[in-house]
Amino acid sequence: MSNAETTYSAATLVEIGTKVICGMGAPLELANAVSKSLVLSNLVGHDSHGIIRLMEYSGWVESGNLIPNAYPKVEWSKEATSLIDGGWGWGQSASYLATETVIASARQYGTATVVLSRTNHVGRLGEYVDLISQAGMMGIAFCNTGGPIVAPFGGVKRVLGTNPYAWSLPGADNYNYVLDFSTAVVAAGKIILAGMSGESIEPGSLIDKNGQPTTNAADLADGGSLLAFGGHKGSGLSVLIDLAAGILSGNMPAAISDSGFGNGTIFMAVDISRYATPELFRSVASQFEAIMHNAGEPDRVLLPGEFEYKTKLDREVAGISVSSGVRENILEIAEKYGVDPLNLRKIS
Amino acid sequence: MSNAETTYSAATLVEIGTKVICGMGAPLELANAVSKSLVLSNLVGHDSHGIIRLMEYSGWVESGNLIPNAYPKVEWSKEATSLIDGGWGWGQSASYLATETVIASARQYGTATVVLSRTNHVGRLGEYVDLISQAGMMGIAFCNTGGPIVAPFGGVKRVLGTNPYAWSLPGADNYNYVLDFSTAVVAAGKIILAGMSGESIEPGSLIDKNGQPTTNAADLADGGSLLAFGGHKGSGLSVLIDLAAGILSGNMPAAISDSGFGNGTIFMAVDISRYATPELFRSVASQFEAIMHNAGEPDRVLLPGEFEYKTKLDREVAGISVSSGVRENILEIAEKYGVDPLNLRKIS
Repeated sequence: MSNAETTYSAATLVEIGTKVICGMGAPLELANAVSKSLVLSNLVGHDSHGIIRLMEYSGWVESGNLIPNAYPKVEWSKEATSLIDGGWGWGQSASYLATETVIASARQYGTATVVLSRTNHVGRLGEYVDLISQAGMMGIAFCNTGGPIVAPFGGVKRVLGTNPYAWSLPGADNYNYVLDFSTAVVAAGKIILAGMSGESIEPGSLIDKNGQPTTNAADLADGGSLLAFGGHKGSGLSVLIDLAAGILSGNMPAAISDSGFGNGTIFMAVDISRYATPELFRSVASQFEAIMHNAGEPDRVLLPGEFEYKTKLDREVAGISVSSGVRENILEIAEKYGVDPLNLRKIS
Repeated sequence: MSNAETTYSAATLVEIGTKVICGMGAPLELANAVSKSLVLSNLVGHDSHGIIRLMEYSGWVESGNLIPNAYPKVEWSKEATSLIDGGWGWGQSASYLATETVIASARQYGTATVVLSRTNHVGRLGEYVDLISQAGMMGIAFCNTGGPIVAPFGGVKRVLGTNPYAWSLPGADNYNYVLDFSTAVVAAGKIILAGMSGESIEPGSLIDKNGQPTTNAADLADGGSLLAFGGHKGSGLSVLIDLAAGILSGNMPAAISDSGFGNGTIFMAVDISRYATPELFRSVASQFEAIMHNAGEPDRVLLPGEFEYKTKLDREVAGISVSSGVRENILEIAEKYGVDPLNLRKIS
């Protein structure tokens, strides 16, 4: 199979995705929201969290783990804390409800924490903390991921998920400062994509089943483990995420849960207007941005979220390039649900 | 100067420290609290945040930056948010007040955020999140540090402080899971200690004034920069800490503030009993701990806070070893304030 890339518009991918998800049994409004969330990941340059996920979701629907017509609900709210029940439906829809809830609660109490339980893959956490910062707040979100695949610092066996952490603040100008990272050196989704396109893995991110360093993506499937980023620091973050998000959500830490999927997620927000006016915040952020950009050669130092902002500007015009492997994957899932991708406009 | 080590009991160091801080003009209760906090850092194995700091504090008192008899106060509380005014006094005392405030507020509202403003060096953040977890809560604390010394990812100039981040959860048994790290590869305090004992710096933690990698501690004083841990991830954490803690506290980000000292600090707490009973939490944590310990060779995989717990058990009995450089430093500061260290009991 050649590795040539094909370019689609975001609208095309959203339409295919929506129809495919409807085909899985989701109501149109949920399907459209999930599809837009996936394609937003493509737009901001994180293809590992994009339209490629449809195949995985399809498997979960078939196995009964993902209930495609489940709507999330606020299980309880008590002062500045809430619990959202995802009903084992779409993690994206549950996360939108959690995001709205944490913003409203932080507006009232100054700060708030919302735990999201019984939900599937929530997608890219950066999307939700960005929404929190659009409301003028600091946002924090982290989730544990089912199925241990990361060895803790000093260890050789899988204990932890890739447990991502996201944090954001309102930006000075066109984009918020959105940090969103996997506590594994490389996200599992990126290993999957690398495997599809035959690329090797960044050294220092993978050990084989015997605990030896490797750069071969296939060693992961053969019982190897991902490593946590930043030595004991990143490993420690992953441990805290697994325990906090796993236990408070009821999903349980990856190594203990027998479900092997789903994301226990915690969202936190602080209304920064209690401490600084939006004008002061933006003014200082603007000065800080200029200092950052001057700290190295041009375009070498980026603020968190700046890459995603620029990539989105570019891809909204130029379209989203997908490798032939990913394209085959989309064609396959479209065919499975009787969605004709040939009717959809191709940019090139 | 030989590098022989001398061992003191914690009680000896606390007594010297208390008298020295009283000599700087602090009331006994503040002096004793600060000295105990410093020596606790020695006890848990983080000598960079221990009794060695007295000399630095003395300089700040003399320059008028640290007001030794200032008491912190709660400036305002509004629902689940509060602001503490440290009055430019001792950061440790202000942090104790912030910790008490965030615990009481989270008890009432389920979650709380407290910002600490106008304060000097807060010491080791892990101490405070540990206190939050002793109250059955998840604790988060982070602060920006005055005086830019870290180059952002991709850059070669100093923009960021060493901006530490701490996070904790109640533990299964004898200790809480306390993660506390500098977002620099190595804490500035450890570079100071390495310089004193003539050790070289871990590769990958320092660049010289021309942006070239170096392991010579002296290159830091000569205009070099520390690097952030974990590439863009640790650098991004540092950026968010500098902006959030810097602006909300009013201390301002390191590269913008002209004070060059002090820690803008944010404390957050979540009462986990709203989501899981303490018994359930402990039970799952206990299972998780066993899985972690079995993920590698014996004693190779540690939970966050386990090293500190074991080191404290050991040093409470065996005493605290200080290098001759640090010992000279203590003798010098004791002499400066007329405190006789020879009257104090030496273990060896």
